[in-house]
Amino acid sequence: MSKSIFYHAGCPVCVSAEQDIVELIGTEHVEIVHFGEDASRIPEAEQVGVKSVPALVTPNGNVLHINFGASIEAVKG
Amino acid sequence: MSKSIFYHAGCPVCVSAEQDIVELIGTEHVEIVHFGEDASRIPEAEQVGVKSVPALVTPNGNVLHINFGASIEAVKG
Repeated sequence: MSKSIFYHAGCPVCVSAEQDIVELIGTEHVEIVHFGEDASRIPEAEQVGVKSVPALVTPNGNVLHINFGASIEAVKG
Repeated sequence: MSKSIFYHAGCPVCVSAEQDIVELIGTEHVEIVHFGEDASRIPEAEQVGVKSVPALVTPNGNVLHINFGASIEAVKG
């Protein structure tokens, strides 16, 4: 199985969701991207359809927006 | 690991998310609850904090609301 990608921005909701996702899917199956640490990944996330964070992009390209987090516009500042 | 519970209401977003979740977590690790088929589970879901569907309740009790789905009020009709 190829990896999922979990995009987040370091908010408490994101970090809590990250821990859950990693525990459920397994750390070896998911790449974690923190926009606060690497803003250069934002365009890539937008391109695959990420509208808010935290979001999980599955290996088949589906975007699961998790919780009612921050909009990606807010993250871009 | 104890099971997660995935609550949904049969909408297209729900079904798509269900398939992704089952694929990622593994069918043996998640119970699927369809409110359209078993409305008696709605109070239990509300009690653990499910505000909209689809939602995944993790073994440690966190509720991950997925996508921008239907509000649980709408499901109750």
